[in-house]
Amino acid sequence: MSEIAPAEPWRIREVGAPDEEDGALLQGESIFALANGHIGMRANLEEPHPGGMPGTFLNSLYEERDLEYPEEGFGFPEVTQTIVNGPNGKRISLEVGGEPFDLRTGEVRRHERVLDLRAGTLVREVEWVSPAGVPVSLRTERLVSFPRPSVAAIRYTVRADARLRVNSDLVVDEDLPPPREDDPRASAILQDPFAPVSHDDDVLIHRTRRSGLLVAAAVTHTGAEGSVTTEPDLIRWTATGEGEITFDKFLAYRWDGALPAPGRDEVLADRDAAARDGFDTLLAEQRAYLDDFWEGADVEVDGDPEIQQAVRFGLFHVLQAGAQAGPHPIPAKGLTGNGYDGHTLWDTESFVLRMLTYTHPGCVGPALRWRHSTLGAARERARQLGMDGAAFPWRTITGPECSGYWPAGTAALHVNADIADAVLRYHAATGDDDFMREAGDEILTDTARLWQSVAYFDDDGTAHIAGVTGPDEYTALMDDNIYTNLMAQRNLRALGPDRLADCLSIPYDKGRGVHEQAAGFTRLPEWDFTAGHEFPLMLHHHYLNLYRKQVVKQADLVLAMVVRGDAFTLEEKRRNFAYYEARTVRDSSLSAPIQAVMAAELGHLSLAHDYLAEAALLDLRRGGESGGDGLHIAACAGAWIALVMGFGGMRDHDGELSFGPRLAPRLRRLAFRLRWRGTRLRITLTRDSVTYAADGDDITFRHEGREVTVRGGEEVTYAVDPIEDVPAPDSPRPPQHHTIAA
Amino acid sequence: MSEIAPAEPWRIREVGAPDEEDGALLQGESIFALANGHIGMRANLEEPHPGGMPGTFLNSLYEERDLEYPEEGFGFPEVTQTIVNGPNGKRISLEVGGEPFDLRTGEVRRHERVLDLRAGTLVREVEWVSPAGVPVSLRTERLVSFPRPSVAAIRYTVRADARLRVNSDLVVDEDLPPPREDDPRASAILQDPFAPVSHDDDVLIHRTRRSGLLVAAAVTHTGAEGSVTTEPDLIRWTATGEGEITFDKFLAYRWDGALPAPGRDEVLADRDAAARDGFDTLLAEQRAYLDDFWEGADVEVDGDPEIQQAVRFGLFHVLQAGAQAGPHPIPAKGLTGNGYDGHTLWDTESFVLRMLTYTHPGCVGPALRWRHSTLGAARERARQLGMDGAAFPWRTITGPECSGYWPAGTAALHVNADIADAVLRYHAATGDDDFMREAGDEILTDTARLWQSVAYFDDDGTAHIAGVTGPDEYTALMDDNIYTNLMAQRNLRALGPDRLADCLSIPYDKGRGVHEQAAGFTRLPEWDFTAGHEFPLMLHHHYLNLYRKQVVKQADLVLAMVVRGDAFTLEEKRRNFAYYEARTVRDSSLSAPIQAVMAAELGHLSLAHDYLAEAALLDLRRGGESGGDGLHIAACAGAWIALVMGFGGMRDHDGELSFGPRLAPRLRRLAFRLRWRGTRLRITLTRDSVTYAADGDDITFRHEGREVTVRGGEEVTYAVDPIEDVPAPDSPRPPQHHTIAA
Repeated sequence: MSEIAPAEPWRIREVGAPDEEDGALLQGESIFALANGHIGMRANLEEPHPGGMPGTFLNSLYEERDLEYPEEGFGFPEVTQTIVNGPNGKRISLEVGGEPFDLRTGEVRRHERVLDLRAGTLVREVEWVSPAGVPVSLRTERLVSFPRPSVAAIRYTVRADARLRVNSDLVVDEDLPPPREDDPRASAILQDPFAPVSHDDDVLIHRTRRSGLLVAAAVTHTGAEGSVTTEPDLIRWTATGEGEITFDKFLAYRWDGALPAPGRDEVLADRDAAARDGFDTLLAEQRAYLDDFWEGADVEVDGDPEIQQAVRFGLFHVLQAGAQAGPHPIPAKGLTGNGYDGHTLWDTESFVLRMLTYTHPGCVGPALRWRHSTLGAARERARQLGMDGAAFPWRTITGPECSGYWPAGTAALHVNADIADAVLRYHAATGDDDFMREAGDEILTDTARLWQSVAYFDDDGTAHIAGVTGPDEYTALMDDNIYTNLMAQRNLRALGPDRLADCLSIPYDKGRGVHEQAAGFTRLPEWDFTAGHEFPLMLHHHYLNLYRKQVVKQADLVLAMVVRGDAFTLEEKRRNFAYYEARTVRDSSLSAPIQAVMAAELGHLSLAHDYLAEAALLDLRRGGESGGDGLHIAACAGAWIALVMGFGGMRDHDGELSFGPRLAPRLRRLAFRLRWRGTRLRITLTRDSVTYAADGDDITFRHEGREVTVRGGEEVTYAVDPIEDVPAPDSPRPPQHHTIAA
Repeated sequence: MSEIAPAEPWRIREVGAPDEEDGALLQGESIFALANGHIGMRANLEEPHPGGMPGTFLNSLYEERDLEYPEEGFGFPEVTQTIVNGPNGKRISLEVGGEPFDLRTGEVRRHERVLDLRAGTLVREVEWVSPAGVPVSLRTERLVSFPRPSVAAIRYTVRADARLRVNSDLVVDEDLPPPREDDPRASAILQDPFAPVSHDDDVLIHRTRRSGLLVAAAVTHTGAEGSVTTEPDLIRWTATGEGEITFDKFLAYRWDGALPAPGRDEVLADRDAAARDGFDTLLAEQRAYLDDFWEGADVEVDGDPEIQQAVRFGLFHVLQAGAQAGPHPIPAKGLTGNGYDGHTLWDTESFVLRMLTYTHPGCVGPALRWRHSTLGAARERARQLGMDGAAFPWRTITGPECSGYWPAGTAALHVNADIADAVLRYHAATGDDDFMREAGDEILTDTARLWQSVAYFDDDGTAHIAGVTGPDEYTALMDDNIYTNLMAQRNLRALGPDRLADCLSIPYDKGRGVHEQAAGFTRLPEWDFTAGHEFPLMLHHHYLNLYRKQVVKQADLVLAMVVRGDAFTLEEKRRNFAYYEARTVRDSSLSAPIQAVMAAELGHLSLAHDYLAEAALLDLRRGGESGGDGLHIAACAGAWIALVMGFGGMRDHDGELSFGPRLAPRLRRLAFRLRWRGTRLRITLTRDSVTYAADGDDITFRHEGREVTVRGGEEVTYAVDPIEDVPAPDSPRPPQHHTIAA
């Protein structure tokens, strides 16, 4: 039995040995995963342990597999891409006096793992007594180097009053557990994706059997003497000793696509540089890199230690997923698991890049350049769909559509506007004109062309987009999804005044005085919430039943009111929010952060706090299966979004920065930083004031609707009137009340 | 190279050996298939021949197979049912002087096959010269006995001036060609579905491996001496002779579900009775059965020999599919092929039973009792879909939903109203109150309950059915499909005055002055027909593209105007027909017969004739792949529908019989008979008159809107004013002009 220790501001600490029965083993593998955007290492225990899910993910190192349909259709993707478990250098097995070190035997006296968010390391400390009664002390420390994209390293120390034997492996195609059958979101796990190309004592080279990608992995050990044996799928370094064995293990990876030139010489050079500089140097570099990150991205939350920890945990994992993007995308699960097959979806642009644009914009240009690199596939897909321009995929690794259920995949054309929006946001925040010239403008043009070819004019001059699916996956193939239309409008207007954008229908129900999520939505039958339901509804109800009723999986119109808040009056927002809260079940992790933002804007401050907690603590605190196949990276970014856009009231409509701060009553202080065109703006919000401090050039923005300029190096403070905490509207599934730990 | 000979009124004659290259082999196997509703024998050549598709279909003898989805969803069927190729007693191989008889070798001097629609037999005559130069004369004659549901027989005669050897087999799990990959409509073909249970010289008993159905097949030969060898999957009777071998082969089948008690004794008794009575007796019985059928069902078409032949061909195959229904359904392909996996779809009730109700109603009660026997599965399915009452499946063999693409399957709720409509029609036409009490009423109640639970009231008191798919499969998940709503209305009103029925929305576009196929349909973007298209569009365009545009696969609103013609004025029909003709591509074989009917009603008589020809000649004349995996049984009924409801103007709205006859200018005379509550009504239509003759009781109906009573045994004649042949409205794919052979 393991537990996550009470919140500490900069560390995630697990106490006790993780159990596979309650999901803690798998969940812990995700929570404590290390990654640098290129290489991801799930926090598998060093020693072999059944029930875990081995994971060494090399970004975009995928295998292909056929998609089979009971009934085929034109343009249904025939092949999908699945992230594979790459060569695993984490595996280190240990014998103590001839007995295997295994937590399931003997006695675990102490087991602790610590993810250090400033050090960027995972430390494991174990006190264990072998079945024969030998006390053993084990310490491992891992890092996946941010500044050295191809390098990971492990420091290993074992002490026991016995004969010790360590087998430290680099292993390819290790055995994996069978895939889960019961959940559509679980991914296919490919057994044995690799064919050996070459092997020696230092380097294994393999090729994925079908996608044909080369991967080279090198390993070496320092600090102890050992002997090496090699097989096509294994380099095994064996050390023996009495009383203590200590060593450092250095790993280097190169592979097609992400870190090219996957040859023996290149990967050996990376490995040798790391080994020569040594583990302590890697540690120092790692901390320096993270110091810089935190300087730009940190959020301070006084009054709620759990949220304080969680938002940093989220920021850290977003960085781990998004650092050094460009040659590859940022997957929905980062590199922490094989959920969603390792695919990237729209939440990368809409959630993850939203946060990174203002905290670590150096990742964002490259991430959007990756999208640009897939334009060819998106144009081809548009042709196939009978559209002009580009149709970006619902889910993919390298660009082609990999969605096997088109009504909630390909039909979600809004992904194109989401990408365009991320381009506009990035450019507004950074002024990166090179990016626009080289990639951004073309994305804007091709996505706009899509809308021009899809939309059509009605007799009365209104324009419509028919038969598409918005963010809410419990409603599909409707006309004039309001989020899609508003985002398409923004996309079109990015190229100048646009008649189509001006004419796009924004459906509104006059009788009820609310906007319609899509044309006719508010006239659909209501879902019967009195019947009692297990969530998520999609696992218990047919889409035919869900689609034709007013039940909302996730913020859709509410998301539109956040990101296109300029299109709604405050009164409209209030009425719409109340209406859709009563029909939204949050069966998607993308929902709560957005509902938090709108709740905060409308003064439902406690509700906002509860939604924030739901988003921020999703993977960190919940038991069960959540996050076992990888963390929800968008929800990690969602904690930041809920705090900064919710309580900070930050908006960026039409490239203009604005704030409307309102602190939750349960918090004392919220401080965050944003980067805006080279200037670092530090915002500190207390119960009665807000201070804006500018590091760099002068910066202009709106505070509560008023234009404000803060000079570089100066700060201004405004009084904030306390606002009443407006009671939450009715909801069929109110968020859990978030209690602040004493 | 084979050809279908010029039309003969009562025979289908093929001249030449069928070639596999041009599809004639497979298509001929369907065209010349024999069946009695229980047992179906594709017209495979007796001797082994690659390229054919062996088919001995025992109605509802199916195997199960898993349906795999790229992305699972709640309530997606996990298992489907597939008709299997049963024990084949057609295979008879021949050696002439040690050389195998094989049309691909030697010289075919004459090859002719004749399907005799009055005799109910298939005769094959071959003159062949072996590679060694020996002339061989072969004649086979097959029948599948209508009066003896478990029996089939073959008479075989070969003559040659050589040593002859015949191997006459009953073979199980013969080799099948691989399934076609390129067409979603092709079915899965299961290899080796049978596990042997017992075998001896007379009977093979097998069990399907997964569905667990027992089948017993018996064989015997008379008229020649032979020896029998037996294996678990084979009974082989071998006869040798000099100059001539002649024998009769008798087969009997019993299997779980359809012809129960599949034991050795039962099947031997069936076989022995047939062998004892002899082949000539079977022939005589067969002709007597068919004489009776034709007496009730024949349609005479003077002036168009091709149509004359085709409509009888269609009637014959509908009888072969539907005779003795009840323990099992009438599949969409009858028992002529494994297309659609042998499933039954809505066209059975809407097309096939429509014809049989008025021509051979003895089949219809049992066919609807079969539906009633699946009520349990349909109720369970309704529960699963969150609905009350019963939700009958889109496609099935024994009742469970087998559709693997729900937007064009399960979402087509209209199938429930179609079944209810067939119940009402059958009862109105026959007065079979026992059926209603025992089955019909319950079907009406449970289908009505479905609509009550699915429909909902709008603020203004209008009722709606949201998010369903109508007959047109190029439009899906729309609100208020007009066909669905009108049929649901009829369904609801069958139980008495109904507020919901009165309030159901019938969408109408005031601006365009036409009804909408579904709410908002006429405001969708137009399909660009100028671009040039390959048909069917579904094989070249994504559903996302098709669904959101005004392109119609098959009559939907036009079908509503035929079967619910009472809900439209003539002027509305005219405007609607012109509008939808311009948007309908007829990518379904269910389309042309309905368009023919409406074209005739509106005076587009040449167009009606062309659509009639398209429907009637679909499987009989077209080359290519059409019908290779089985005939389109609904289109077979469609020829009758086009003639009787089109030129005969027959309608049955609300259980009232009416006629509005209008002969196509290219025809001289049309005569048909209908059975109405025990009376046989014979209608003879010439260019200037129509005669109604009643055999039996007095009969009352409407002629051109006027109520008419014809006394039993009498006839009345009315002058028919010639009407102008109105030019066809624009169509993106006008039917081929049908030229009448000299």
